[in-house]
Amino acid sequence: MSSEPNVETKVASPPARRQRVMSGMRVTGRLHIGHYWGALQNWVKLQDDYDCFFGAMDWHGMTTAYKAPKEIAPWTREMIAEFIAWGVDPNKSTIFIQSRVPEHVELFMIFANMVPMGWLERVNTWKDAIEEMKANDTHNLGRFMYPVLQAADIAMYRAQKVPVGADQISHLEISREIIRRFNHLYKAKLPEMEPLLTEIPLVPGLDGRKMSKSYGNSLYLTEDTEKDLRKKVNMMVTDPARVRREDPGEPTKCSVYGYHKLYSSAEDIPWVEHGCRTAGIGCGDCKARLAENIEKVSKGPREKKKELLNNPGLLDSIIDAGCEKARAEAQKTLQIVRSNMKW
Amino acid sequence: MSSEPNVETKVASPPARRQRVMSGMRVTGRLHIGHYWGALQNWVKLQDDYDCFFGAMDWHGMTTAYKAPKEIAPWTREMIAEFIAWGVDPNKSTIFIQSRVPEHVELFMIFANMVPMGWLERVNTWKDAIEEMKANDTHNLGRFMYPVLQAADIAMYRAQKVPVGADQISHLEISREIIRRFNHLYKAKLPEMEPLLTEIPLVPGLDGRKMSKSYGNSLYLTEDTEKDLRKKVNMMVTDPARVRREDPGEPTKCSVYGYHKLYSSAEDIPWVEHGCRTAGIGCGDCKARLAENIEKVSKGPREKKKELLNNPGLLDSIIDAGCEKARAEAQKTLQIVRSNMKW
Repeated sequence: MSSEPNVETKVASPPARRQRVMSGMRVTGRLHIGHYWGALQNWVKLQDDYDCFFGAMDWHGMTTAYKAPKEIAPWTREMIAEFIAWGVDPNKSTIFIQSRVPEHVELFMIFANMVPMGWLERVNTWKDAIEEMKANDTHNLGRFMYPVLQAADIAMYRAQKVPVGADQISHLEISREIIRRFNHLYKAKLPEMEPLLTEIPLVPGLDGRKMSKSYGNSLYLTEDTEKDLRKKVNMMVTDPARVRREDPGEPTKCSVYGYHKLYSSAEDIPWVEHGCRTAGIGCGDCKARLAENIEKVSKGPREKKKELLNNPGLLDSIIDAGCEKARAEAQKTLQIVRSNMKW
Repeated sequence: MSSEPNVETKVASPPARRQRVMSGMRVTGRLHIGHYWGALQNWVKLQDDYDCFFGAMDWHGMTTAYKAPKEIAPWTREMIAEFIAWGVDPNKSTIFIQSRVPEHVELFMIFANMVPMGWLERVNTWKDAIEEMKANDTHNLGRFMYPVLQAADIAMYRAQKVPVGADQISHLEISREIIRRFNHLYKAKLPEMEPLLTEIPLVPGLDGRKMSKSYGNSLYLTEDTEKDLRKKVNMMVTDPARVRREDPGEPTKCSVYGYHKLYSSAEDIPWVEHGCRTAGIGCGDCKARLAENIEKVSKGPREKKKELLNNPGLLDSIIDAGCEKARAEAQKTLQIVRSNMKW
């Protein structure tokens, strides 16, 4: 049967000269618009220029959700549907679920033995959050060791690039340190992942604070219907100085304007700016237009996602194929790693 | 094909009323006689009364050997040959290699999220060894988290009993705490493993200190030939008060006597005691008899092990079958665990 294509080789070899990108999203529940602007919209662009691996990171979700896994478990599968609905193309990118590629925890285990405790104790998100974590029962080993799992997630696919915002570059440093230590100890050549600097717009919550499940101030990507969307946009906090309809407002002090800049057209933006500053439009008009524009962008993906969820056979086959592609590559990496280590 | 036996069910269900035992040996290199008296001889007895799982724990070996895995890697396979050579019966017990059952690291990962940092910081072997570990470059995450991996190793097979010496009972406590926390969080019923108290004779090194690879004072189980054995026994430290042949000695102050009690017959023991105390025998006579007696016990296993290593196909098929049996049981446990967690 020599004419049969060698599937594994095809899967394993990225086209020459294309660099690998790895990025993942922690599973914590429904996706909100911050997930889109912070990652998804960028992933869709990257997939034409890079060999991309995009993961639904459920082990990372479990570090904080361990007490009630059932609250996040169903969202792992939906996350993949959401990726696809918004334009991540399973024919261009490898889309996988972290826990379906058990090699991640094996590579983590290998790295764990060579990571000095001090590196983890120094991680800022650990040091700064100790008191909060103690209160939340998340001052646990899983939470402490997650930077090592993260290094394994990226190294798993021998990725050269990791898309990050300017303020997250330092988060990559410990991954890079781990790879350098691995390469030094075993005279190996795992690629030292580099940040792929990405402009990430700030997307505050409906009340102006950080968008977060626990604040109840999130606009969900597709889980909000057109009606929810209108209702939520109506609740948004505006420029506090514009008390009455006839008071002029200052758009840069208003979160509604911030959202317009993400969702509205080149014609709508000056309409908002001028209308607000001259009191030519009311906040109600401005919000109605925003809701309309968000709906325009969301309608297609919302329907696409629904279609996928209504066709579980298709969705599962896409997930299976993605996880299989990811595993093949992960197994190849583990082979390289073990041969570097002479283990 | 309804007449085909359902292999998985056969593997998964221990005979009613037989309790599960789990025990493992950390892979650190050649086995010495301390490994036999500390564990192996007991395992051989246990396998008739319990459903036993015995593992060559290579992930644990790697916590300290991570810089040179190649120094321990070949010994993992030899360890299994050694188990069998000394009487662990692959038809009675399930013999496996830890890293060949990747479910261990997955269960570890699940436990890690619910283990408070304080539990690990309090572990005595951690607290006491910090300075030494810093000097050895083993003050690492892998070394810190090993008690959680150990809990997973035991829970992996839903073992009720773990053979331990009286001074090791406290080492089980953190495993039991983890199981209790798991059962409490998920209303689950994983068995809370209990110590199976075992009399473990003290086997000092040839120089009277702790037997250890780094002291070069080990008597190897089968790696020492008859000639090595005689040479090493001759080097053993005796009662320092017995300077000349004609001085009487005190056996209880002599490590040679300690070894006689392990290896020599009911006739030889009084011959040693009387001969030494009356200067009726010299240390040379006493040592020659000991070497002879050790050789009597070791010859068979040494040959059996050689046979197994000379027949790699057979040894590998035994290892494969054991790892497969262990995996089937481990996968069943993970299914139970995930269904408890509703994950």
